[in-house]
Amino acid sequence: MPTLEEKQLLLIPGPTPVPQAVLRACARPMINHRGPEYARLQNENVAGMKEMFQTKNEILVLTCSGTGGMEAAIVNTLSPGDKVLALVIGAFGKRFVKIARAYGADVEEMEFTWGEAVDPRKVRDRLSQDKSKEIKAVLIQHNETSTGVYNDLKVIGPIIREHGALSIVDAVSGLIALDLQTDNWNIDVVAAASQKAFMLPPGLAFVSMNERAWQAYEKATTPRFYFDLKSAKEFAEKGQNPFTPALPQVFGLQEGLRLLRQEGLQNVFLRHQRLGDAVRAGAKALGLELFAKPANASNCVTAVKSPEGLGADDIRKFLLEKYGLVLAGGQAHLKGKIFRIGHLGYVSETDILGCMAALGAGLQELGVSVDPGAGAAAAMASFQAAER
Amino acid sequence: MPTLEEKQLLLIPGPTPVPQAVLRACARPMINHRGPEYARLQNENVAGMKEMFQTKNEILVLTCSGTGGMEAAIVNTLSPGDKVLALVIGAFGKRFVKIARAYGADVEEMEFTWGEAVDPRKVRDRLSQDKSKEIKAVLIQHNETSTGVYNDLKVIGPIIREHGALSIVDAVSGLIALDLQTDNWNIDVVAAASQKAFMLPPGLAFVSMNERAWQAYEKATTPRFYFDLKSAKEFAEKGQNPFTPALPQVFGLQEGLRLLRQEGLQNVFLRHQRLGDAVRAGAKALGLELFAKPANASNCVTAVKSPEGLGADDIRKFLLEKYGLVLAGGQAHLKGKIFRIGHLGYVSETDILGCMAALGAGLQELGVSVDPGAGAAAAMASFQAAER
Repeated sequence: MPTLEEKQLLLIPGPTPVPQAVLRACARPMINHRGPEYARLQNENVAGMKEMFQTKNEILVLTCSGTGGMEAAIVNTLSPGDKVLALVIGAFGKRFVKIARAYGADVEEMEFTWGEAVDPRKVRDRLSQDKSKEIKAVLIQHNETSTGVYNDLKVIGPIIREHGALSIVDAVSGLIALDLQTDNWNIDVVAAASQKAFMLPPGLAFVSMNERAWQAYEKATTPRFYFDLKSAKEFAEKGQNPFTPALPQVFGLQEGLRLLRQEGLQNVFLRHQRLGDAVRAGAKALGLELFAKPANASNCVTAVKSPEGLGADDIRKFLLEKYGLVLAGGQAHLKGKIFRIGHLGYVSETDILGCMAALGAGLQELGVSVDPGAGAAAAMASFQAAER
Repeated sequence: MPTLEEKQLLLIPGPTPVPQAVLRACARPMINHRGPEYARLQNENVAGMKEMFQTKNEILVLTCSGTGGMEAAIVNTLSPGDKVLALVIGAFGKRFVKIARAYGADVEEMEFTWGEAVDPRKVRDRLSQDKSKEIKAVLIQHNETSTGVYNDLKVIGPIIREHGALSIVDAVSGLIALDLQTDNWNIDVVAAASQKAFMLPPGLAFVSMNERAWQAYEKATTPRFYFDLKSAKEFAEKGQNPFTPALPQVFGLQEGLRLLRQEGLQNVFLRHQRLGDAVRAGAKALGLELFAKPANASNCVTAVKSPEGLGADDIRKFLLEKYGLVLAGGQAHLKGKIFRIGHLGYVSETDILGCMAALGAGLQELGVSVDPGAGAAAAMASFQAAER
């Protein structure tokens, strides 16, 4: 099947596809980032972001990748030597550990089997042992992108609060694809980024800090300048950033937020639920094994084990070249063993049907004994069931 | 004179206007930043950037503002307690001091009168006193955006090399508007950014590190993660970034570099020379006093003292509202006392003529006794003289 060289179906867990209206907004002419037009734009964006974070906190918009947002969350709240509990369920949990250690934190890793979620009981047990309150902060992913597993922050947030440690959440891939009630669930610091469910290009990170987090800021001695959130907050009060912001993404954010608010946040969650259900049903119908335990399988991204005798990266290469279907590979020790289907952001049900059909055909062409249409049929049935 | 509300003549020292072809490139659909298409793009960009930096060094592309690039230059080469000599001629020199101090450097400020350049003889004297080679690095601006003054790095670079300290140059607003021969002039670290003479939106910083800088990296103990340049270098070797890059700006960079290479770097310098000469001639013809001493007046931006009895920000507000002309204000103690005309990046001779005419008319309308067409006429004569 010949394919148009440049036309791709991009289904990776970020950057995600971006609506044409947002891309057009990104191409607006430059404006003065210290002028009144920019201030109106930024203020509108921050108001919208508060809805997305489900918080009353100021949302600080930084020009950087999601990892920059994670770093900002760390360096603004911790001091060298601070004891930190990191709950790790995959590669991005490991990244949080690396960032905290790079800045001198004394990190205790509590690692769970990759493919499973953090067990809230184990967190409660560990924190309840910490009678002298040595643990200053707990690091956790909202959604672990490398395994396609989400953590139950509705339960874990209050457990951390009961202990008194600061909860620092990497919600880079999870926010607005999955519910995250920043204020209701007692989350102190949340970091997110533009290129995921927000349907924007990469280039912006967003950080929410509550009052407890700002109190921690006052005590935190980790050095910082570019990522200094107090400076960001002071400039935000006059509708500015301390440094020149990534204007295309700021323009795009305004347009993206309009689309998201029009749809309504609960509908955004439901959309991702429908896509996640269909991908899981489709993959299973193709005889593939899912990497994530069903209980906490994420609606952002689905990790799929590659069939016996086939390398996951060989499947990806074949699908890219033959069908223009772009899937993500495995990270760390999962490289070559899993591939990941991103289904967050600007992804339609028909995108998923096309993905499942191409995946089925590709597997058959690679010699797997499979009914090539079974995945698309199962995904379709899943969508139809969701309509009823 | 009624004006189109949204049509502006943006003449600030960044973000600068962006060509339509670059804006269109910024609006390209997303791609996989770990895939082969991205690797080709990044490799092409880095090859082009080496020409722009006039260096054989790898150019590291970071997703951040220019200040992030300055921070990267500091945290990758210095350790807390290191003695650093900062040559300050304006607000961005002060920023370099703040960054270095935030990360624990022992900074000695050598400040020169704002509006003048660094005096190379004083630098030589100070460094020659440092017999025990305590000074590990010298911080300096290529072009000081706040005052419109450039430093003579052709002379100062070798002076610093003779001493042996690392030269760390903030070339954010200067690079490619003004000559900077990274290798020939012995500059060890150079930081630049996308939103200036590169004619791109903000969102990317570029850092050049030579072998001496990488040796300093190996000894530097300042904590770093997001801005770790060794990690950036290792990923660059496979055509990637450690973290998801700002794709719109990366697409735009490819297009911008094509335009710049077509024009030729020497012609880019000459273009900025013509614009700078015309702005200076025009402003003087309007009876305005220039803030920068003529010897080192920059071809990137011209700082103009506001006429007796008129606030610079009142002039700017009037020009913005009446003529859609966007100029920059003064920074630090210069706020309200100067306004700044940016003439770098995608700025045409006709833009400058329009600016001078609007400025002349505006001054007259604000009650200044002035021949309103004198600025445009002088700018035009300057352009015509340059053609001969």
